[in-house]
Amino acid sequence: MSKKIPYKIYLEEHEMPESWYNVRADMKNKPAPLLNPGTLKPLTLEEMSGIFCEELCRQELDDTTPYFKIPDEIKSFYRMYRPSPLVRAYCLEEKLQTPAKIYYKFEGNNTSGSHKLNSAIAQAYYAKNQGLKGVTTETGAGQWGTALSMACAYLGLDCQVYMVKCSYEQKPFRREVMRTYGANVTPSPSDTTKVGRRILEEFPGTTGSLGCAISEAVEAAVSQEGYRYVLGSVLTQVLLHQSVIGLESKIAMDKYGIKPDMIIGCAGGGSNLGGLISPFMGEKLRGEVDYRFIAVEPASCPSLTRGKYVYDFCDTGKVCPLAKMYTLGSSFIPAANHAGGLRYHGMSSVLSQLYADGYMEAVSVEQTAVFKAAEEFARVEGILPAPESSHAIKVAIDEALKCKETGEEKTILFGLTGTGYFDMVAYERFHNGEMTDYIPSDEDLAKGFAGIPQFPGNEI
Amino acid sequence: MSKKIPYKIYLEEHEMPESWYNVRADMKNKPAPLLNPGTLKPLTLEEMSGIFCEELCRQELDDTTPYFKIPDEIKSFYRMYRPSPLVRAYCLEEKLQTPAKIYYKFEGNNTSGSHKLNSAIAQAYYAKNQGLKGVTTETGAGQWGTALSMACAYLGLDCQVYMVKCSYEQKPFRREVMRTYGANVTPSPSDTTKVGRRILEEFPGTTGSLGCAISEAVEAAVSQEGYRYVLGSVLTQVLLHQSVIGLESKIAMDKYGIKPDMIIGCAGGGSNLGGLISPFMGEKLRGEVDYRFIAVEPASCPSLTRGKYVYDFCDTGKVCPLAKMYTLGSSFIPAANHAGGLRYHGMSSVLSQLYADGYMEAVSVEQTAVFKAAEEFARVEGILPAPESSHAIKVAIDEALKCKETGEEKTILFGLTGTGYFDMVAYERFHNGEMTDYIPSDEDLAKGFAGIPQFPGNEI
Repeated sequence: MSKKIPYKIYLEEHEMPESWYNVRADMKNKPAPLLNPGTLKPLTLEEMSGIFCEELCRQELDDTTPYFKIPDEIKSFYRMYRPSPLVRAYCLEEKLQTPAKIYYKFEGNNTSGSHKLNSAIAQAYYAKNQGLKGVTTETGAGQWGTALSMACAYLGLDCQVYMVKCSYEQKPFRREVMRTYGANVTPSPSDTTKVGRRILEEFPGTTGSLGCAISEAVEAAVSQEGYRYVLGSVLTQVLLHQSVIGLESKIAMDKYGIKPDMIIGCAGGGSNLGGLISPFMGEKLRGEVDYRFIAVEPASCPSLTRGKYVYDFCDTGKVCPLAKMYTLGSSFIPAANHAGGLRYHGMSSVLSQLYADGYMEAVSVEQTAVFKAAEEFARVEGILPAPESSHAIKVAIDEALKCKETGEEKTILFGLTGTGYFDMVAYERFHNGEMTDYIPSDEDLAKGFAGIPQFPGNEI
Repeated sequence: MSKKIPYKIYLEEHEMPESWYNVRADMKNKPAPLLNPGTLKPLTLEEMSGIFCEELCRQELDDTTPYFKIPDEIKSFYRMYRPSPLVRAYCLEEKLQTPAKIYYKFEGNNTSGSHKLNSAIAQAYYAKNQGLKGVTTETGAGQWGTALSMACAYLGLDCQVYMVKCSYEQKPFRREVMRTYGANVTPSPSDTTKVGRRILEEFPGTTGSLGCAISEAVEAAVSQEGYRYVLGSVLTQVLLHQSVIGLESKIAMDKYGIKPDMIIGCAGGGSNLGGLISPFMGEKLRGEVDYRFIAVEPASCPSLTRGKYVYDFCDTGKVCPLAKMYTLGSSFIPAANHAGGLRYHGMSSVLSQLYADGYMEAVSVEQTAVFKAAEEFARVEGILPAPESSHAIKVAIDEALKCKETGEEKTILFGLTGTGYFDMVAYERFHNGEMTDYIPSDEDLAKGFAGIPQFPGNEI
């Protein structure tokens, strides 16, 4: 195809995906089921629906249906901020003097500042549909909390957010954005829940983690009538909703005859990466097209590259079901020096299985190198990226520079999940030379691994 | 036309404007020329080009050429973040239960968070082209400074920004965004310039104003070799560059057969409003189509609705040329309680002339009502608007509610100039009920008017 590739490809409304794609349907080795931590048996729909909305439980458990129709109300909401642009990084290519062709799918053009809104509206919609009063959740960097607040404001649902304390303190303005959308925000760990009080007692002065905040939000949901808990990452239902990222990317690329050689995404809980790669991974699983997939994680929280692939708790408070995943142990609390999200101890069970089966690679990168890449990117591409997204930028640049050495004209697609407008404290530390790198020692990791539950078949 | 209007209309690259439109070419009564404050004679190209880049001076002085071709380099930069979407506010219409059809042109999807980038890249380009080392400027809310930093980083120019002190303090993160793009940022008034020291002496404890910051930036430009001053609003060259907003809007509307009945924009110095209305105003001036144009200004800084239409200094320090405009007097310093931009004492001479000739209306609105409208808009349309832009939202909602009363299906277009991510201090004040309204008394205004220069033909 010789069609000139524009700087940005926007799909027309009628070209937008009608359904989400469930990559599990095409996996030969299905992700292991969630387990009831009491019985160690697979969690049933009934058990699950005490915590989560019913329809979301059905999506969570269904590993055979390839497509789920997107309800019209959600499609309407998507049209407020989607399609997101698929951007050809002409300026970055020029700056790097690389023969590589670089594309990024930019999910930051909405007030939550990230891709999180794609699943937030879906989860809020099913909660509303079930007649609930409200939902509870946790948020790390604040993007998920903002996204859920926006979705709840739109639908008229109450929204209670437990925000990881270090982000709450680093990002006071995030709280005000959530308040603009009518949400209640509590720094976690807090003394408003039993589990929060227990964690505060055990780790006084902790700056929190996603794992802690999840425990608090789950407790808040099950102790209030008409509330359920919703989660912004890790779960397979979230990957399902986020598949809209990959589907739009694929439709846009197909339209211009573009075939990516490699697809790169940052990985915290895995929702963005999973969503971005899903339809491409489907082709690989079905043996139709081969792609390289690269998960990029922070060296300070390296679940894929240094974790164990076992059953573990999804939360620090151990109130959630057990999930089989690459994990650093639910008691692993990443260094507070790390900026923003990607601070989760585990990884989506879908991505974990794909990684275990060799369908995906993983690399870890250090914080200062990530911010250096972020600044380089900002200056030529205009967009100020979130620290999370910048992990993918770093590896995309590395890969493009390899192409420069070899002369290969590879096509790179990476996920630019969001903007860094609320991360200026971290950027300031970087500008002032105060940012440090942290790589946990084997001893640090061993402490986390020690908290992983041991039972027959789950030895580490 | 019965074509279904999508939520967002994005032009294709080939549909984007090739030229800027100079509305002065179609004005019978041309805006009065800038005057040399020493001689009171019209400023010559030679005099002007000591302060401004040469090509920009030519654009400033040319009131007959209707179209200026956009250079290819600027078009490339535009393609990084343009076209901006023309959004049909279906959700707001539904919320208001109005028969009105509401559209907004959203300029916030770029890191500067506003339309300012449209002129920043043009001005930086001409500076670079002239072989300059760098540029100096002022910034109020920080959007223009950020925009200019981005443009300078892209072109490799040095960028020195004087930032109005109250914004510098309210928006520390803006400074870090500018630093990410390599700019130097100084709070104004500062002791780094003669005029800054004079203002600090005369008004100790002042929180600054755009007028002060302009004086400092101009002094910094003329006292350094290889530097020129650039300005983000007020000047007619800026309106010229910003016409890209109106041109894109018009192309998008024409494509779907949409004719706006009224066009609404917030007005500080006038660049956004002028840019948005230019091509529509051209049709009105040529007698082809009639539109209502509404300028919305803050009640705390009401230059159009309560100012004098006379020659005045553009800056507090009185180092700039005299411009004929609606003005509150260059010594008028708006109340510090006012959030963000729109704090300028004067108004674009083009818009002033159009207003004087009855082609445009103006209204002023109070701050708390503006934030109420902003929050209402955010909850249904998703986008968190800048306080500046929210002035236009407020009046668009008012007009839509009038339609609800009368049953008229009017089509409203307003300019949503930017996002409020860096305005969370103001939103926090609003949420906490700490925001107040301020309307200057006639005595307050009289003090400002007293500073307007008096000479034959310029009596107030």
